[in-house]
Amino acid sequence: MSLAHGSLVYEGKAKRVFRTDHHDEFLVQFKDDVTAFNSKKHEKFETKGSLNCQISALIFKFLEDNGIPTHFIDLRNDCWMLVQKVEVIPIEIVIRNIAYGSLCKETPLEIGSELAHPLMDLYYKDDSLGDPLLTDARLDLLSLVSSSQKKKIRSLALEVNNFLKIFFTGIDLVLVDFKLEMGFNNRGELLVADEISPDTCRIWDAKSENCQDRILDKDRFRKDLGGMIEGYEEVLRRIKKSL
Amino acid sequence: MSLAHGSLVYEGKAKRVFRTDHHDEFLVQFKDDVTAFNSKKHEKFETKGSLNCQISALIFKFLEDNGIPTHFIDLRNDCWMLVQKVEVIPIEIVIRNIAYGSLCKETPLEIGSELAHPLMDLYYKDDSLGDPLLTDARLDLLSLVSSSQKKKIRSLALEVNNFLKIFFTGIDLVLVDFKLEMGFNNRGELLVADEISPDTCRIWDAKSENCQDRILDKDRFRKDLGGMIEGYEEVLRRIKKSL
Repeated sequence: MSLAHGSLVYEGKAKRVFRTDHHDEFLVQFKDDVTAFNSKKHEKFETKGSLNCQISALIFKFLEDNGIPTHFIDLRNDCWMLVQKVEVIPIEIVIRNIAYGSLCKETPLEIGSELAHPLMDLYYKDDSLGDPLLTDARLDLLSLVSSSQKKKIRSLALEVNNFLKIFFTGIDLVLVDFKLEMGFNNRGELLVADEISPDTCRIWDAKSENCQDRILDKDRFRKDLGGMIEGYEEVLRRIKKSL
Repeated sequence: MSLAHGSLVYEGKAKRVFRTDHHDEFLVQFKDDVTAFNSKKHEKFETKGSLNCQISALIFKFLEDNGIPTHFIDLRNDCWMLVQKVEVIPIEIVIRNIAYGSLCKETPLEIGSELAHPLMDLYYKDDSLGDPLLTDARLDLLSLVSSSQKKKIRSLALEVNNFLKIFFTGIDLVLVDFKLEMGFNNRGELLVADEISPDTCRIWDAKSENCQDRILDKDRFRKDLGGMIEGYEEVLRRIKKSL
């Protein structure tokens, strides 16, 4: 189902962003495309866009209710979301609670080991460079954010992690790690932007003991496990039931 | 030429380390092997070991004379060095004054651009993981060094850079970037260890304007430019002349 919208502002791998009649509001369309490994792997899954849009909307609403500012305004239909216009910061903020994925290829940490504290990794959002990891010194050198903005970004990301971890635990889900993007709205306020979905979070079923069965996120696609849409549906079902 | 020595403690890509009659002294033999790209490229160049051993000895001595503690005790012959035994910290400390190499593949910084401040990049010394870049948070998570050790390492590395930059400028050489390794001796003192040579430093001839001709370091091997040994010889010649 489409919606009346203005001109295209930006098309990413999983979303299209359009202008609206209000200069500080954008419409986001969630696409059915799934990509991995910097787009080397690419497929379409019917209903994926709609699942991620609904999951994101519910999570953004949950965060807003807990005092976390997000760009979310309203769900317009199953795969269209009205959001505040933000200037997105070109940094991918990854918070990890359990060692998995690239972290285990770049450190001797064992797959699945719980981290004593959440680990925050910042990546420079640039496909042509392969979204490289940023140290604090490199971040400063690139002048992507000021020192006070950096502090705010870190503290907001940790707050999101705290709320999401508790929320997910309540519905028998484990939040392994997730990616956030943030941006500044027209009033200079820092907001959580982009999406929060099984495309951007690693989510495990807390009650499943099997390493593969427990995966309910995009790793089902990355690892060719099948049943990706069923995983996303299960996440949406549990979130809906709890709210 | 060989030397009497005890049993082999460690063999790396460019050096062998042997025990001696003194439990807190080691003998280091500099090899003629040159490797790059995590050993994917490998050749032998006669006299390379001897050149690096002599260059390292002179630089270590220069640093010692300026109050920087190093593992260097004495040059035993052209390719053998007597050093203090140290417990090497598994971190490669890279200091960059000019953007080059991997930094330009991982950031939008232009090749050859001078950095406003020296950039320190720490890498986890582990060939099997490909010596990955360490953020501060990852460094803490791996508990490789304590917080006070980390401070000392950073400050010692910056001091080395300050002295070397001035020294190199005086002999018309540009110190683009370099790698340091450090370790603790039996008394728990932090020392600069390993080697400081055209294998571990990017060194340019300050007076050459040609991007390729100016290179006097291992990049001549990495980039198949030829004349690597001549570059190392030129570095040794200038250092010898100035001291």
